[in-house]
Amino acid sequence: MLSAILAYAALPSLAHADALPSWNDGANKTRIVRFVEDVTDPASRNFVPPAERIAVFDNDGTLQTEQPMYFQLAFVFDRARALAPQRPEWKTTEPFKSVLEGNLARVAASGDHGLVALVGATQGDATPEAFSKVVSDWLATARHPRFKRPSTELTFAPMEEWMAYLRANGFKTFLISGGGIEFLHVFSERVDGVPPEQVVGSYVKMKYELRNGRPVIVRQPDIDFIDDKAGKPVGIDRFSGRRPILACGNSDGDFEMLEYGTSGPGPPRALIVHQDDAAREYACDRQSPVGALGRGLDGAPQRGRAVVSRKDDWRTIYD
Amino acid sequence: MLSAILAYAALPSLAHADALPSWNDGANKTRIVRFVEDVTDPASRNFVPPAERIAVFDNDGTLQTEQPMYFQLAFVFDRARALAPQRPEWKTTEPFKSVLEGNLARVAASGDHGLVALVGATQGDATPEAFSKVVSDWLATARHPRFKRPSTELTFAPMEEWMAYLRANGFKTFLISGGGIEFLHVFSERVDGVPPEQVVGSYVKMKYELRNGRPVIVRQPDIDFIDDKAGKPVGIDRFSGRRPILACGNSDGDFEMLEYGTSGPGPPRALIVHQDDAAREYACDRQSPVGALGRGLDGAPQRGRAVVSRKDDWRTIYD
Repeated sequence: MLSAILAYAALPSLAHADALPSWNDGANKTRIVRFVEDVTDPASRNFVPPAERIAVFDNDGTLQTEQPMYFQLAFVFDRARALAPQRPEWKTTEPFKSVLEGNLARVAASGDHGLVALVGATQGDATPEAFSKVVSDWLATARHPRFKRPSTELTFAPMEEWMAYLRANGFKTFLISGGGIEFLHVFSERVDGVPPEQVVGSYVKMKYELRNGRPVIVRQPDIDFIDDKAGKPVGIDRFSGRRPILACGNSDGDFEMLEYGTSGPGPPRALIVHQDDAAREYACDRQSPVGALGRGLDGAPQRGRAVVSRKDDWRTIYD
Repeated sequence: MLSAILAYAALPSLAHADALPSWNDGANKTRIVRFVEDVTDPASRNFVPPAERIAVFDNDGTLQTEQPMYFQLAFVFDRARALAPQRPEWKTTEPFKSVLEGNLARVAASGDHGLVALVGATQGDATPEAFSKVVSDWLATARHPRFKRPSTELTFAPMEEWMAYLRANGFKTFLISGGGIEFLHVFSERVDGVPPEQVVGSYVKMKYELRNGRPVIVRQPDIDFIDDKAGKPVGIDRFSGRRPILACGNSDGDFEMLEYGTSGPGPPRALIVHQDDAAREYACDRQSPVGALGRGLDGAPQRGRAVVSRKDDWRTIYD
C-alpha cells in the first residue's frame, strides 16, 4: 500500500497519461504530459495563459498518412482524370500528361508553374460551396491504394488523442498545411476537431461577383499564398495572431515552422513525428519524393526538437 | 396575475431581452432576439447548428466610433508625426506632407498608392511582436479629440452586449475590418471578446528570416490584401471558412459583406448601424469623407437589411 502511494507520488503525470492510451510509455509520452502540466500550472514559472496556448500541427504525414502521395494531390489526380474526357489536349500537355499517366516524379518536377496550371484547371471557377461539394463527394469514394480506406480515416490515433488532450487543457490546436485551405475546411472540424478558423493552408486568389443576382465568391486560377516552408510562420502569424508554444511536423516543409515554434519566450517545444514504421505505415525520410525529412533531423535535440518514433512511441497507428 | 401570465406568454423574448439592457425596446431589439431564438431552436425550420452560427461585424463605426478619422489612420498620423524628425524630407513629400499638416482629405486623395507609402514608412520592417508593442504604447496614450478617451473605450455598449449575447447562444463573432489585421490583434480579444483567429483585416506581405540567429517574421512595405468592399467576403471565406448568417456594418465599405451575409440558405440577416446621433456621437452618412453610407441605405429593407438607429435604438452609447 505504502509503495503504491509512493509510486503514485513519484509519477504525478500518470493520472493525465490516461488521456494518451495510444502512446507507449517512454520519454516522448512523458515529455508531452510534463509540458502540458508545466505550462498550465499557475505556480510554474513557465505558466502560459490559455489565450496564448497555441499549438500548431502540420497535416499531411503528421496527422494522417501522406504516402504514397499528398492527400490533396490524390484529389487533384483523380479530378484531372475525371475531367480529362472533356480536355483531350491534356494527353499531350504537361503537367496533365504526367498526371494522367500517374507519373508523380514528373508532376513534381513541373514545380510551382505546373501546380498553378493543375489547380487552375481542376479547381478554378468554383464557388467555395461548389468546391466543397466536389471535395466531399471525392472523400466519400476515394480509397487509399494500400489501406483501402478513405484518407480521412487514416489519421493517427496518437495525434488525435494528443490534440484532444491539449484542447482539454485550454490549448487551441491549429492545423498548418501546404494543402489548400478550402480543401482542409471540408473535413478539419469533423476529422481533427479543428474548426475552420484554426486552419491555415495555401490559397488561391478569390473574386467577389454577382451570379444570377446572387453574391458569390469565385476561385481564380492564380495561387495567392503557399503555406509551406518559410510560408508557414507567416501563415501562423496571419491566422492565429500569436507565436505558437508547441509545433509539430514530420517533413522539411515544416522546418521553419518548427524553428519558429521553438524561439518564443517561455518553454517552447517542437516535435518531429518520424515516418519510421514500414510495417504498420511507411518508413522514409531523407530520400523520399514526398515529405522528405533531412534538415529537421540534423541536430534536432540541440535545436529543441524532439523526434517521435512511430514505431516505438505509438501503440496504435489508426483507430 | 392572469394578465401577467398572458403578457409573459405573448412576449417570450422578454426573458432573453435582459441580455441587451443598452437597447431600447422596439422593432430592432425584437428582431435581434427573435433571430437568435429562431436559429437556436432545434424545432425551428431555420435551426442552424452551432458550428455554422457565424456572425460578422465591421469594426470602425460599427463597434466603435470612427469619426473624425478611422482608428488606425489616427495611429498612422501619430506615428508619422513621431517619426518625422528623422525624416525631414516628409515636409515636402506627399502623402507625408498632408499627414503632418493634418489634411485628411488630401491624404485620402492619395489613394492606395499613398496608403502603401504610409504603411511602409510608418509600420514596415517590424516583427509582429515589435509592431504590437508600438500599437499598445500608442493605445495607452492616444485620446479621441472630442471625447478625450482612448479609442478602445469608445466601443458601443449595445454592440458589445449583442456580440456577448450571440456568443452565449453558440455563435462565433468575427471582426471584419479594413484596418490592419495585426493592428486589430492587439486589442480585439481584450476589447471585443474576439480572439485573434476570428479577426479578419487587411495585411501586408511578411517575410520569414533569421535575425541574430533567431527566427522572426518581418513586415514588408507592400500591401498584400485589402479587406474592404469586395475584399470582405473573400476575407470572410478565407478566415472563417463559412458564409455568415448574420452581418453587421455601418458604411458602404461593408456593402458587399452585407449582401454576402443575406444570400445564404436559411434566415440570413444583415443590419446597418446608422450613424445618426449627433448629440451623443456623430451623425453623417452619404456625404461623409469617412465611413460614407449611401448604397447600403438604398432599398435596405427590400434587400433584407435592417437599419438600426443609434439615436432611437440605443439607450446607452458607451459604457
